Amino acid sequence: MNINGRHYRTIWLKEDDKRVVQIINQLALPHRFEILDVRTAAGVQRAIKDMYVRGAGLIGAAAAFGMYLAALEAGDRSFEQDVLRAAEALKATRPTASNLAWAVNRMLARLTGCEAARLNAAEKRDAARRTAQAVADQDADYCKHIGMYGLDIIKAVAERKKARYGASAPPVHILTHCNAGWLAFVDYGSALSPVYAAFDAGINVHVWVDETRPRNQGANLTAWELCRHGAPHDLIPDNAGGHLMQRGLVDMVITGADRVTRRGDAVNKIGTYLKAVAAQENNVPFYVALPSSTFDFAMREGIEIPIEERDASEVRFVSGKTADGSIETVQICPDETPSRNWGFDVTPARYIRGFITERGVCDASEKGILSLYPEYAGALP
Amino acid sequence: MNINGRHYRTIWLKEDDKRVVQIINQLALPHRFEILDVRTAAGVQRAIKDMYVRGAGLIGAAAAFGMYLAALEAGDRSFEQDVLRAAEALKATRPTASNLAWAVNRMLARLTGCEAARLNAAEKRDAARRTAQAVADQDADYCKHIGMYGLDIIKAVAERKKARYGASAPPVHILTHCNAGWLAFVDYGSALSPVYAAFDAGINVHVWVDETRPRNQGANLTAWELCRHGAPHDLIPDNAGGHLMQRGLVDMVITGADRVTRRGDAVNKIGTYLKAVAAQENNVPFYVALPSSTFDFAMREGIEIPIEERDASEVRFVSGKTADGSIETVQICPDETPSRNWGFDVTPARYIRGFITERGVCDASEKGILSLYPEYAGALP
Repeated sequence: MNINGRHYRTIWLKEDDKRVVQIINQLALPHRFEILDVRTAAGVQRAIKDMYVRGAGLIGAAAAFGMYLAALEAGDRSFEQDVLRAAEALKATRPTASNLAWAVNRMLARLTGCEAARLNAAEKRDAARRTAQAVADQDADYCKHIGMYGLDIIKAVAERKKARYGASAPPVHILTHCNAGWLAFVDYGSALSPVYAAFDAGINVHVWVDETRPRNQGANLTAWELCRHGAPHDLIPDNAGGHLMQRGLVDMVITGADRVTRRGDAVNKIGTYLKAVAAQENNVPFYVALPSSTFDFAMREGIEIPIEERDASEVRFVSGKTADGSIETVQICPDETPSRNWGFDVTPARYIRGFITERGVCDASEKGILSLYPEYAGALP
Repeated sequence: MNINGRHYRTIWLKEDDKRVVQIINQLALPHRFEILDVRTAAGVQRAIKDMYVRGAGLIGAAAAFGMYLAALEAGDRSFEQDVLRAAEALKATRPTASNLAWAVNRMLARLTGCEAARLNAAEKRDAARRTAQAVADQDADYCKHIGMYGLDIIKAVAERKKARYGASAPPVHILTHCNAGWLAFVDYGSALSPVYAAFDAGINVHVWVDETRPRNQGANLTAWELCRHGAPHDLIPDNAGGHLMQRGLVDMVITGADRVTRRGDAVNKIGTYLKAVAAQENNVPFYVALPSSTFDFAMREGIEIPIEERDASEVRFVSGKTADGSIETVQICPDETPSRNWGFDVTPARYIRGFITERGVCDASEKGILSLYPEYAGALP
């Protein structure tokens, strides 16, 4: 992704010191673009937990780099024990996301298996760096492919609209919730990757950006990404999507996901379910875009997935930029008012038209998913 | 409604100067309780347009008092012409609300009909004051009755829960969107009137308060009302309601309405439709509480009702209280990001379990509505 003409990823190893992980500080966006150095596994844990980095793929890549830093910190003789401890701590930072555990387990497999036992300490640390980098590279590569497959869907809609309205056809209106753009991954994004691909291919697209309360990832991050890319969009309150669908102003919904079960139930940012239900009522196709690392092939029913409840202050306070350019936090309710704050909800598979993955598009069903990922057909314990 | 032990309405004539209308400034809530004097019809227009007063019933009462002030200002010889001009200006302030036109027309009928022609100027002004006061008194009286009928529904749910769970039964969880409490009317409220009646009757109720972006009437007003009354509640993001319904944590939804057609389509705050669709999917009864002045018996289809589009700045900026107690406005998106801001959406009758009115509860259908209001059976032009 380009920012002011320069290519960035969301996470990388520092050019002149590979013992330092660098991240874009997403808490400072959209008002300030800031790069942070992270030098310890504990620092990565904090960055994930406090959401300096967030988003399905990026959490996974950050955890992988966190395991790399843990490998640097681990004692030569207590190596396995130390990286296992770091793995537990990293997994505990965000309980809902699938990619987190996936990436940590991939690192553990490289650093603690029989094969690893043959390596010396320096070789293990080198393997940790290469594996973390491979996790990040694969994430970017998968997201690029998601964009290509999603582009086909958008192109087909654009052609139908052109056939119906001629040269003055309105844009393909795509509604998205939360941020599943390149900021949520290492590059490209999941839900927004098809949008960028379509925009770059000259298709007339327009994005309805759900604000995404309470943390405003839509207003803060998705809007910022789309601005940087120059893609047409409008910020809307989370409440507006149903009205837009009723009036024929949404051609499709594309969201990301934090975890998808083998039957196709999708856990995503709180509020996704409301949009999916309204989409079905209005015959608007609802797509979930995700790399395979987001599937949880060991789980059938979405309703079993633990839903993270976050601090009530995220609902009671809103941060933003004041007229003089400083960042301020304001309380939006009475002092005495309590609040509850669930981070995610579950969209049952029956509301989802299809999954857009790095291997293509499939139905939201066990059969559909396994048609793309046959290697997991026997994976349920 | 009591505030710190004293009874208030939302609008009234000043005790020692009946030429002055007093209102609670709802733009200052919840952080500051402030009473404003309004002395001119133009002042009432501004108060409605800029939302110092808002809410179905209160807009109607304010418009009635605005017409009273217009009658005070009108020339003796140009009386009819002057009040007609004021009526047009008042009706233009908020195009969606039904009560506004209803109240203005009721005032016009008193001030410009054949009967009015027999009155002298002083008598007309006196009639204007009495009629405006009657509009306000009737609003409060109707809302009180809505509370009584709604109480029966809540009581039945509480009894079912007690039968199922025994003495430790969880509270009756009621989700509401926007503010349809006493601040939206002259007193009692529509959606919250049953809640207050149930709480006062000792029923264990708990309210999920939708924040209601972009203007945060839930966080600012509903939460404040419930705090003043001491009724248990939690503020939630608008995104959370579907998740709560899926998990069995919503026993019923009650909202107000800005306009309801004779077939039972309900126009209410943007986002209501999303909750209604999710409620139906989860078999949660969805009620709309309203006084008869909110029905638009001349309209069949909700989709025909003009939906007010408001300024984008309401979406892009959020106001609240800073740590030092001052009120500040913050921008929550990039400088370049545009926004759209529709004020209302339409919930088709098929999603609504029933209407709670001052005459009782009815089905959301033309037949149901006319069973309570048979005098409108022939009213469609």
